[in-house]
Amino acid sequence: MRVLQCFDAENVRLGASNIARRAGLPTSTAHRLVAELVSVKLLERFADGKYGIGTHAWETFVRANPLERLRLQAQSILSDVHDELGEYVSLAVPDFVDRTILYVERFDSPDNRIQILGRHAGRLDLHTTSSGLVMLAFAAPQTIKEVTNRPFVDSYTGEITDGSSIAALLPEIRSTGYIAFMGGLVTENTAIAAPVVDHRGVVRASVGVVARTSDIDVNFVVDIVLEACQKLSARLQNDATY
Amino acid sequence: MRVLQCFDAENVRLGASNIARRAGLPTSTAHRLVAELVSVKLLERFADGKYGIGTHAWETFVRANPLERLRLQAQSILSDVHDELGEYVSLAVPDFVDRTILYVERFDSPDNRIQILGRHAGRLDLHTTSSGLVMLAFAAPQTIKEVTNRPFVDSYTGEITDGSSIAALLPEIRSTGYIAFMGGLVTENTAIAAPVVDHRGVVRASVGVVARTSDIDVNFVVDIVLEACQKLSARLQNDATY
Repeated sequence: MRVLQCFDAENVRLGASNIARRAGLPTSTAHRLVAELVSVKLLERFADGKYGIGTHAWETFVRANPLERLRLQAQSILSDVHDELGEYVSLAVPDFVDRTILYVERFDSPDNRIQILGRHAGRLDLHTTSSGLVMLAFAAPQTIKEVTNRPFVDSYTGEITDGSSIAALLPEIRSTGYIAFMGGLVTENTAIAAPVVDHRGVVRASVGVVARTSDIDVNFVVDIVLEACQKLSARLQNDATY
Repeated sequence: MRVLQCFDAENVRLGASNIARRAGLPTSTAHRLVAELVSVKLLERFADGKYGIGTHAWETFVRANPLERLRLQAQSILSDVHDELGEYVSLAVPDFVDRTILYVERFDSPDNRIQILGRHAGRLDLHTTSSGLVMLAFAAPQTIKEVTNRPFVDSYTGEITDGSSIAALLPEIRSTGYIAFMGGLVTENTAIAAPVVDHRGVVRASVGVVARTSDIDVNFVVDIVLEACQKLSARLQNDATY
């Protein structure tokens, strides 16, 4: 897994010695592990001699994944939001144990020049993102307690925030049903997010829109995001898998 | 990998003994392998005690995958085709060695009642699908020779088709630039597909539309599919990764 985790969007193909360095493994160990992973098709060797996550791994892990089912359920809803607003829209799921959010899908225009820190299939901190805060606000009281009982560290700046000051933000988010977060991770942006809940009322995801603050009509975007979340919540509630 | 491949869209969660049976492994071996896969987070244990492909595996294998990059490049183009036609639209890639195609993305309406055999992240035969035939028609002559030098077996019906009779279909597909395939895998459907090529002219994918034959205006759909393929080809040609 350490070998597999060397690969990311910037490092789709790596040579064996680079893998050893990134994974902090002796070269011989890295070579052996890479060969093993190639033999079970979790890695593939490309024509240039480098290695990468290949087709067989993709289909095995995508085919039967609950996240992928969620992604497909959300696909047309996110696409409609993007068509209507022309702004970046994303679907994220919470990891309350790790105190992060994971991006599962996003729709954007190739010509949108806005700076976005969230990466597809990448994580960001729970407490610095609108999606993270809104999902935390709608989590069970016990979860909120566990998540906010110790300080949060911003993984970009290293800045430490007291757990109780994050907890103090949540009641208002819960009462309004969404969050509009101006100048959070990127100074010139506003992020708007709302929660998606399953039939037991458990928060499963959030839909978020990020746009330049100067371009955005917050109330208009909030209405569209809330409608999208209601639609997706209804879909999950009609799907026996959830 | 045999354990991981037990999981598919119909079997997202499996108990350990079910895994043993499906993988054809002794129960003790299956238990040991499942525990190992859980410990490296390729499998996760759900609250009901069953196992499945989890979040960590999804993010690791999706984050750095060339197929996922292709999927994101195609996303808005496929979405536009779906908005315009209201019909099922898919993106597939070829596996000329395995003589299959792999579906990488699809857009459809939840209320579309058409029967589709292609599954997301699933494979179908190269020689029985419009996408497969069109990608084969645009493959290099050497690839076509290697792929058609032995009989094809239909993995649904078991029917055997001579390689040369498949090869004989290709020149016309190549000259028209697309395929319109009526009553192929599903009798009442028509499938239309065209190729996506990279900057070296190598066929990388195909965009396909499937609709009820009674509902479809073939020429209209062909124009839209060809335009989508040209757009996606241009995007790949502008992306240094390809």
